[in-house]
Amino acid sequence: MIKISIGQYRSISEPYVTLFGSNNVEFELIQDQDELSVVINQQKLTQTKDIITSINQNFDNLFTNKVNIINQIPDVSEQIITAYDHILNGQIDEDSIKKINNYLSGQFLQSSSYLTVYDFLLHELAQTLSHLNRPLYEKFENIIEFISKFETTESIQPWIFNQTLFLKPFSKHVKNVYNEIEKIASKNLNTFADFANLENCSYHFKLQLKNGEEKVYTDHIPFSVSPILIQKKEFDEFYSKTQLWNELIDKMSKNFEWAKEIFKNMSDPLLQGFLKIAEKANKSEITQKIQMGLIRNDVLHSAVKHKWLQVEYNTISISFGYIAEQVQSLQRTIKNSYLKNFFEEYTGLQGSSVAVVVEGLKNAYDLYDKPNSQILVVVSGFEGNSYDQRYPEYLLARDHGIICKRRTFEQLIEQTEVKDDGTMLVEGDEIAVIYYRTGYSPDHFPNEEIWKIREKIELTKAIKCPSVNIILVGFKKLQKTLQEAGQMEQFLNKQQCEKIKENFATIYDFEDESKHEELLNLAKNEPQHYILKPQREGGDNNIYGKNIYPFLEKLTPSERKNYILMEKIIPKPSITFMIRNRKLEVAPSISELGIISYFISDSQKIIHNKAGGYLVRTKRYFDDEGGVNAGYSVIDGLMIKKQQD
Amino acid sequence: MIKISIGQYRSISEPYVTLFGSNNVEFELIQDQDELSVVINQQKLTQTKDIITSINQNFDNLFTNKVNIINQIPDVSEQIITAYDHILNGQIDEDSIKKINNYLSGQFLQSSSYLTVYDFLLHELAQTLSHLNRPLYEKFENIIEFISKFETTESIQPWIFNQTLFLKPFSKHVKNVYNEIEKIASKNLNTFADFANLENCSYHFKLQLKNGEEKVYTDHIPFSVSPILIQKKEFDEFYSKTQLWNELIDKMSKNFEWAKEIFKNMSDPLLQGFLKIAEKANKSEITQKIQMGLIRNDVLHSAVKHKWLQVEYNTISISFGYIAEQVQSLQRTIKNSYLKNFFEEYTGLQGSSVAVVVEGLKNAYDLYDKPNSQILVVVSGFEGNSYDQRYPEYLLARDHGIICKRRTFEQLIEQTEVKDDGTMLVEGDEIAVIYYRTGYSPDHFPNEEIWKIREKIELTKAIKCPSVNIILVGFKKLQKTLQEAGQMEQFLNKQQCEKIKENFATIYDFEDESKHEELLNLAKNEPQHYILKPQREGGDNNIYGKNIYPFLEKLTPSERKNYILMEKIIPKPSITFMIRNRKLEVAPSISELGIISYFISDSQKIIHNKAGGYLVRTKRYFDDEGGVNAGYSVIDGLMIKKQQD
Repeated sequence: MIKISIGQYRSISEPYVTLFGSNNVEFELIQDQDELSVVINQQKLTQTKDIITSINQNFDNLFTNKVNIINQIPDVSEQIITAYDHILNGQIDEDSIKKINNYLSGQFLQSSSYLTVYDFLLHELAQTLSHLNRPLYEKFENIIEFISKFETTESIQPWIFNQTLFLKPFSKHVKNVYNEIEKIASKNLNTFADFANLENCSYHFKLQLKNGEEKVYTDHIPFSVSPILIQKKEFDEFYSKTQLWNELIDKMSKNFEWAKEIFKNMSDPLLQGFLKIAEKANKSEITQKIQMGLIRNDVLHSAVKHKWLQVEYNTISISFGYIAEQVQSLQRTIKNSYLKNFFEEYTGLQGSSVAVVVEGLKNAYDLYDKPNSQILVVVSGFEGNSYDQRYPEYLLARDHGIICKRRTFEQLIEQTEVKDDGTMLVEGDEIAVIYYRTGYSPDHFPNEEIWKIREKIELTKAIKCPSVNIILVGFKKLQKTLQEAGQMEQFLNKQQCEKIKENFATIYDFEDESKHEELLNLAKNEPQHYILKPQREGGDNNIYGKNIYPFLEKLTPSERKNYILMEKIIPKPSITFMIRNRKLEVAPSISELGIISYFISDSQKIIHNKAGGYLVRTKRYFDDEGGVNAGYSVIDGLMIKKQQD
Repeated sequence: MIKISIGQYRSISEPYVTLFGSNNVEFELIQDQDELSVVINQQKLTQTKDIITSINQNFDNLFTNKVNIINQIPDVSEQIITAYDHILNGQIDEDSIKKINNYLSGQFLQSSSYLTVYDFLLHELAQTLSHLNRPLYEKFENIIEFISKFETTESIQPWIFNQTLFLKPFSKHVKNVYNEIEKIASKNLNTFADFANLENCSYHFKLQLKNGEEKVYTDHIPFSVSPILIQKKEFDEFYSKTQLWNELIDKMSKNFEWAKEIFKNMSDPLLQGFLKIAEKANKSEITQKIQMGLIRNDVLHSAVKHKWLQVEYNTISISFGYIAEQVQSLQRTIKNSYLKNFFEEYTGLQGSSVAVVVEGLKNAYDLYDKPNSQILVVVSGFEGNSYDQRYPEYLLARDHGIICKRRTFEQLIEQTEVKDDGTMLVEGDEIAVIYYRTGYSPDHFPNEEIWKIREKIELTKAIKCPSVNIILVGFKKLQKTLQEAGQMEQFLNKQQCEKIKENFATIYDFEDESKHEELLNLAKNEPQHYILKPQREGGDNNIYGKNIYPFLEKLTPSERKNYILMEKIIPKPSITFMIRNRKLEVAPSISELGIISYFISDSQKIIHNKAGGYLVRTKRYFDDEGGVNAGYSVIDGLMIKKQQD
């Protein structure tokens, strides 16, 4: 029987219940102490810090991420718990510290089973930190960074990250910010949700009524109550490279022979469809040479490398350019009223993402230069994200008098006329720009008729956002190829290449069949460090962790070539207050940042190239996927400290 | 058998079918002519104008508004139709004109039966006008005004006003604006409705789902595609009196003994409830003496008197302060894009109505002067108009950090605490201002408990918007009393009184029982000229036209005293393109204008007094009621010609 002092912490029983309970180990919780003062906490933390530092130095030896071998715990861990308990209870004796240090350095335990004690330590640390006031807390930033570097046992990690570990954005005036915010948010869920609707943070879905009728229902978008704090320097460091990235994407898109060569062993039918169209478009004299790219460059911040690493760049139908801004305005309103004094002064970041979308389309429209022509927005039948899609159209109408025509591929089959000179008419209206909000996934092309109309409109004089050449650049295989020696150097100079490469996470492909075994072993032995991605953009098609190996094993070597294996980026989690369907969830979470930008180029040069604004999607730390509409992510915002401006 | 040449007009058969068909008169339509040119139209119109002028001069003799005596028509009208047909067909012979003139001056027809020919004339005029281009049209403005002065037979009037009679706001560059706008609006209904949602022109209602669940559904508010043109001078003339009106309302609210005396014979239970509370509030030392009025002064433009006449002033829970502005922004966007070149340049009018609501509440809050106090918004359980109600709350939070607490009377029973000094707490939060969005109708007070809490919160130190004294001023009886000699003079000087009285429509009350018979006869003989109103604000409780007499007859003389009989204001109709539930309706319509303003006063003086913005509700010409949520009205906007600025 393990006896555990739950000390001064109200909820301390939870990790033990989780850890032992789920493994059928008998244990007993002893409640034996009142709340300690901050001074004692400080003493405790000083001790803990030394311990952690020593762990830190031995990190690679100590930590394997293996599944916890619970049957080795009872006999050894009890001594450690007692020793550690001494420290926590203020009985800071050399003997206890030595015991723990010995323990952690592997003297009492084989390296394969130390994880549980590690977890205890983390748990105590989390507890201690959550009771600290800010000045103390700041001293231990390195500890938090340390924690985010590793993955502990699956059973205890959720609990640890559910603690108030990550209060950095919050004000020193408030003692337990976490509980306060949770209380206020729970009490004002309807207000915050109504406010979200007022800021157009809304989306549509269909519901069946009692009378059999189908109605389009409106709900607020899932959002985070308060923005996450970031380092302006690190943000700027990546943000400033956006134009360079666009230059690279533009140049890649103009070298069709190069892309074709790289794709040559791939059988993906979507890719094949686009290659066929591109082949014709690049040969045609009529097809518009001016092209527009509306790009979202997605990055995650690596807690290990202290910089933003690229997850992917998106070259077609990027979402949330508008709502991303609206959520930031919503968060600021909540911060100015309901959460007054909870935050230190902060600012958001520069640039408007919806303005970039509108400016890009407007400039493309102007380059086409034909009065009363229209912008064709190619859409799927029912669009849930219509607030986000419609607002740029609204601004184009309001500020520039430009009319957008939303049509599905099916409608275009009937309504499109292309004149001999390539002029495209839809229902008699001349189309200046084609803006795709669909057409990037195999299910968008259910039959040959759709491929035919897709090809037909590509070969017109209308400016495409994006052109088929830009779409091809979005395939993962090219993203991977950029990492290979000599590839990127065809497009950029050495210095530029170095800049771009700074933000690369490692990507493997399956081009070389002799290396498949090595890659399969990686996926088998360290599944938690990898994500397997098909060629498509977006998250929903990825394969994670333990599912990677069995999936790869079933594929033929040739089929594997449609995939890339990518290093999983480990970010520092923060606590997020998420509101979905007017319900609150407080969870440890990580945030993916997408920098939004556009470029327009003709066959010779880039004419416009501008970054502006960003999208932040925050997902639960323990979810793999991150789609907002799929219910995983919430839309979030950023803040930087005032003095960092 | 009547033979009717339907001439060049595709839809000319309609009025004849209506007129004759509904009266079982045999007739035959003859289609005998191609479309005429504008030149011929012009000739025709010149003739028509002379005829109309002659009618105009004999208006009072000719026109009785009696119901059409159809059996007198066939034998006399055929000659006239033939004569008129000659003119229409370009055979402009003196003989035909003489015949019509003689006819119209009563030579051929008794005055009781001339109306049908009149109708034919109007119909032809409408047709001709609808084919005119603008310069021609402008010459005949007097004719349109003339038409709006009378009511023709009930059967033909709807058809007449369904013509493109009222194209003044539209551009001379477009020939048949009416058809064009209808075509564009029908084709872009979903776009316009989505745009409306993006501008927060939305409201909620409840739907039963298939699975039995109840969901709150969001739809766009009914709106008009394009604003209506008004005369700036006439608008300014009324708008400039808003502060004077507020002064009057404030002064009336401060003379409780005067109001009590006027109400003394009235049994209305809502009035009795408020009088009881006011009695206590006015005696109490603790009750807050600072009060806020948020007023909407509703007027209709009289086509006869060429000025805005007051319909009523609203002193509690005025709606659409926010959405009124949003619709104007929506209309401008549509005008700048989809209806480009359809309008001449115009501007909207000054002032923001939502800013007035927010500024008023903020100033009241500041006068209460207590950090972290809140504004209590008293609401009904489910609120369909929540976008409109919530936005001022959002602005208070965003721009001033002020938190609004929405509570129903039922919730307040549980959550309210009033300290001995009158301090009001709801769930422990101090209330600075009480803002009523409910509590103005008998069904808002279903039981004695609700009246109790209503009284309890009135007697607190919180500033009320409005105070019970201001609510009492909203009762129709006081509005009527102001028309009586010597009454208004108690509050304003002679010159001020004259200014206010300029915009009065005639109101009768039933105070003097000896005059009941006279009033009942009015209601019986000229029902179309009156509206019967109970004491409540808002339209839904009114009784119109032929229903007035039987209703009054059934009441006891004493019961009648709860009502006023008001002159019906006859405005000049315009054509409105209304969108409701994503469906278009084109209809002749009239617009009611509400000037929004607020004032704050203490026991001595007015501290703040400001007008800003307006609400325009446009309803079908042939509907009596005008509620937006009830499905009668649409929200509309105003425009004035650029050069009129």
